[in-house]
Amino acid sequence: MIDYNRDAHDIYRQSFAIIRAEADLSRIPPDLEALAVRVIHACGMPEIVADLEFSPGAGAAGRAALEAGAAILCDSRMVAEGITRARLPADNPILCTLNDPSVPALARELGNTRTAAALELWRPHLAGAIAVIGNAPTALFRLLELLDAGAPKPALILGFPVGFVGAAESKAALAANSRGVPFVTLRGRRGGSAMAAAAVNALGRGHA
Amino acid sequence: MIDYNRDAHDIYRQSFAIIRAEADLSRIPPDLEALAVRVIHACGMPEIVADLEFSPGAGAAGRAALEAGAAILCDSRMVAEGITRARLPADNPILCTLNDPSVPALARELGNTRTAAALELWRPHLAGAIAVIGNAPTALFRLLELLDAGAPKPALILGFPVGFVGAAESKAALAANSRGVPFVTLRGRRGGSAMAAAAVNALGRGHA
Repeated sequence: MIDYNRDAHDIYRQSFAIIRAEADLSRIPPDLEALAVRVIHACGMPEIVADLEFSPGAGAAGRAALEAGAAILCDSRMVAEGITRARLPADNPILCTLNDPSVPALARELGNTRTAAALELWRPHLAGAIAVIGNAPTALFRLLELLDAGAPKPALILGFPVGFVGAAESKAALAANSRGVPFVTLRGRRGGSAMAAAAVNALGRGHA
Repeated sequence: MIDYNRDAHDIYRQSFAIIRAEADLSRIPPDLEALAVRVIHACGMPEIVADLEFSPGAGAAGRAALEAGAAILCDSRMVAEGITRARLPADNPILCTLNDPSVPALARELGNTRTAAALELWRPHLAGAIAVIGNAPTALFRLLELLDAGAPKPALILGFPVGFVGAAESKAALAANSRGVPFVTLRGRRGGSAMAAAAVNALGRGHA
């Protein structure tokens, strides 16, 4: 037998203690502290807390929306799978429209990626929802375009696309003008579905 | 309309070009170049290539196994969802046993995490498989224990657990002694399901 910690609860406890010891959380408001800790936990990098950008009260807005039963709209199946259902306070629906059979045709029609086109199917669910982008910069850009065109406002945007083309730009666009919607985002190229799902989980039940 | 790149193919092309311009791939053998590029693509960090560890021929071994129909065993649903089925050369089965109803009882019995206990259900599928750990250090430790106890050898281990307790240690244990199994791993705390899935995708059809 190899000597290692086999106790899930103790692993979480130790992990969060290490994060709190190493990460500079001084600029993080209390309603986003759990989110910062869990996003760091998802990627193993305490220093990314410096790249977190958010609107005042974004954490509280997200928590209130979840408690009121808000749907969680995800740009990728990985984000949807990363959400811990047991933490959701109102058995909140989790929706990912990417694999809907209508999406390839929508993408051709819109001249956009499938992930961005899939947001057309978010329209009936957008009002008051948690909109989570954990993969595609084009999806975050498209969400801003939908809002500019008068789509209903979600309660919170969690903007965590990752990559080399458009990720930093789409997150900067969100932070510069979130169209009146509370938001949390991570500046730069880093991000991804695990961090995005961790952000949702931090707004659910329990503590980091 | 916001000005951004909406062409998925061109976004991939540009992303991979940026990665190849920025990442030092000089120590990466040809059979792992696509893997290195796609793992970087999944996390947005060209510098992580320095933390990649691997056995000689690991990429070729993984490709041959996939072409021979190898099953892909994943420690988490997020990894399974991140694998692009269209890239798999032999309609390879993708298996994640974490949500099997027997797992909570197995975890109590073994005194280990659910993710580690779920590997008990890998046993009949291990021989010649691609074993992918994208989340839990305990799963990677447990895989090494199974091999020490005489379990059938997979064709390749992709070791990408993430986090603050056991991640660096489990990956160091794999790199120090992979029990005769070809492997690719990422030293340190960083890793995760997106990188693990990207590593699988790089071994499938097409090029990075």
